[in-house]
Amino acid sequence: MKPPPILVTMGDPVGIGPEIVARAFVQGAAEGCAVVGDVGVMRRAMALLSEPWPVVALDAPDEPAPPRCLPVWPPDALPSALDALPWGRVDARAGAAAAACIEAAVRAVQRGAGSAIVTAPIHKAALAAAGVPYPGHTEMLQALAGGAPVRMMLANDELRVVLVTIHQSLRTAIDAVTFDAVLETLRIARAARIGRRLAVAGLNPHAGEDGLFGDEEQRVIAPAVAAARAEGIDAHGPFAPDTVFMRARRGEFDCVVAMTHDHGLIPVKYLGVEQGVNVTLGLPFVRTSPDHGTAFDIAGRGLADASSLVAAIAWARRASGEVISGA
Amino acid sequence: MKPPPILVTMGDPVGIGPEIVARAFVQGAAEGCAVVGDVGVMRRAMALLSEPWPVVALDAPDEPAPPRCLPVWPPDALPSALDALPWGRVDARAGAAAAACIEAAVRAVQRGAGSAIVTAPIHKAALAAAGVPYPGHTEMLQALAGGAPVRMMLANDELRVVLVTIHQSLRTAIDAVTFDAVLETLRIARAARIGRRLAVAGLNPHAGEDGLFGDEEQRVIAPAVAAARAEGIDAHGPFAPDTVFMRARRGEFDCVVAMTHDHGLIPVKYLGVEQGVNVTLGLPFVRTSPDHGTAFDIAGRGLADASSLVAAIAWARRASGEVISGA
Repeated sequence: MKPPPILVTMGDPVGIGPEIVARAFVQGAAEGCAVVGDVGVMRRAMALLSEPWPVVALDAPDEPAPPRCLPVWPPDALPSALDALPWGRVDARAGAAAAACIEAAVRAVQRGAGSAIVTAPIHKAALAAAGVPYPGHTEMLQALAGGAPVRMMLANDELRVVLVTIHQSLRTAIDAVTFDAVLETLRIARAARIGRRLAVAGLNPHAGEDGLFGDEEQRVIAPAVAAARAEGIDAHGPFAPDTVFMRARRGEFDCVVAMTHDHGLIPVKYLGVEQGVNVTLGLPFVRTSPDHGTAFDIAGRGLADASSLVAAIAWARRASGEVISGA
Repeated sequence: MKPPPILVTMGDPVGIGPEIVARAFVQGAAEGCAVVGDVGVMRRAMALLSEPWPVVALDAPDEPAPPRCLPVWPPDALPSALDALPWGRVDARAGAAAAACIEAAVRAVQRGAGSAIVTAPIHKAALAAAGVPYPGHTEMLQALAGGAPVRMMLANDELRVVLVTIHQSLRTAIDAVTFDAVLETLRIARAARIGRRLAVAGLNPHAGEDGLFGDEEQRVIAPAVAAARAEGIDAHGPFAPDTVFMRARRGEFDCVVAMTHDHGLIPVKYLGVEQGVNVTLGLPFVRTSPDHGTAFDIAGRGLADASSLVAAIAWARRASGEVISGA
């Protein structure tokens, strides 16, 4: 029996999300996928491409669709006239529509009508304008899935990074680097089987330089690494943040656990974002996304590169296949 | 007339400093340089190499030395028997000796007996054990040079990064990101003529995401960038930290100003530390160093790679030549 489709949410309707989704289909990279989005928005996006495919509205996400078309399942209660919104401007209706598609995709996967979720970029200010109480996808998916602890992983061909803290100010992130948060991250990374040898980056310069530049390594991170090792997790560190990613890239570790959003994402993105994939670990389903944003500055011009989304779809296909096959 | 020598300090006597200095000479990369260090320490280091050169003690740093030898000028009052210290262990005498060499090199340059300073790695805990009241080279050089504001730059063939804060805990670094500190950094970067287009990285994830993830960008960094632009500095940003280094690497900017040690150093080191050079901007003389540490784990085994030191010497030669020629 054919597995249910991978559900691809359209993202913010006035960002590059709809056009990279359309492009991924036209490039032949989205076989077995269905879009959760607004039909008008996806038609407008498809029209930006040089060889557009027809857009087909589905009544259910897992309704079979004809080949060489873009199958779009619109959730109930999307705002109207989304395809008349100007490109590249924060808009509460756009934020509300993006959020509605994410929620509908989760509910569909939960009832077996989807095998994984791939999300196109959303704009956090648009979400906030719509009154959506989450700073980003990861937090929203976590809440929709019941609140189990999750972590964001960014991965490309050279480096895999799991983040202890994400979408908060650096000042509050420091407070959020606790023993429990670090240990939980290591447990989630192990459970996700993304690699055996886990390096843990410190928080402070030189990982605190024996306490001269901050004590979080001694007080919080090293004890969490020790506790993880006592559970059989192959964790190492904390290491100086400025060299641990280079060491992992060279093959010394399979994955790096980073304390802050930018410690982890700077190296993942440094060589180019085209192939980067964002994976949410700890959810009861597979969820990936491209590792870039809505790119409002180029939205609606047909210029956006779908490579990262294509990589995210490929990762979701591989990971959900593993889940389905029970591997 | 021959310019005075570039002075190369030996670094921590029990780290890899002495052996990479010896190796740089034997590789022919240190012509016109003289070592500020302990003669016994440099003899012990030279003996680690397969084709050692003789070590010659100088009475003054600018005393002419014969070719194919390692000229070493020992400052007064070095601790005795430094060459009997065990490799790779924090030692107060080693820290004191390293600091004495740095101070002697500065005084020599100030009296015209040296044209630039290249420093081999020191160990901060050894400095602290010796009661040296500076966390690192940069702060010590700044004090010795009279206290004018300085900034650390890290550079390789692909990326140049200037840091607003360096050797302090991440928590205190956030407090140190002030309007004055950011503006001063931009002024120093302009004066150092390291590139015209200066990108400024934010402090918080997504550069604060319009204030959702921290307000330092709106309150401090953006006003400093605006003030710099009003002075004619070609500064841009603040940009999201996780993509600005990638953008600079691709050629959009000549240099990135980073708020924290690891935001800046993670991307500079990601591709490998061999070619990285640390440059202190704002001093009244040229000072460079390799961008790695003492590597106590491999010190004394003849394994250490001198590439970064060689690059630091080359940078110092180029930069001091520009100063001498008045360019």
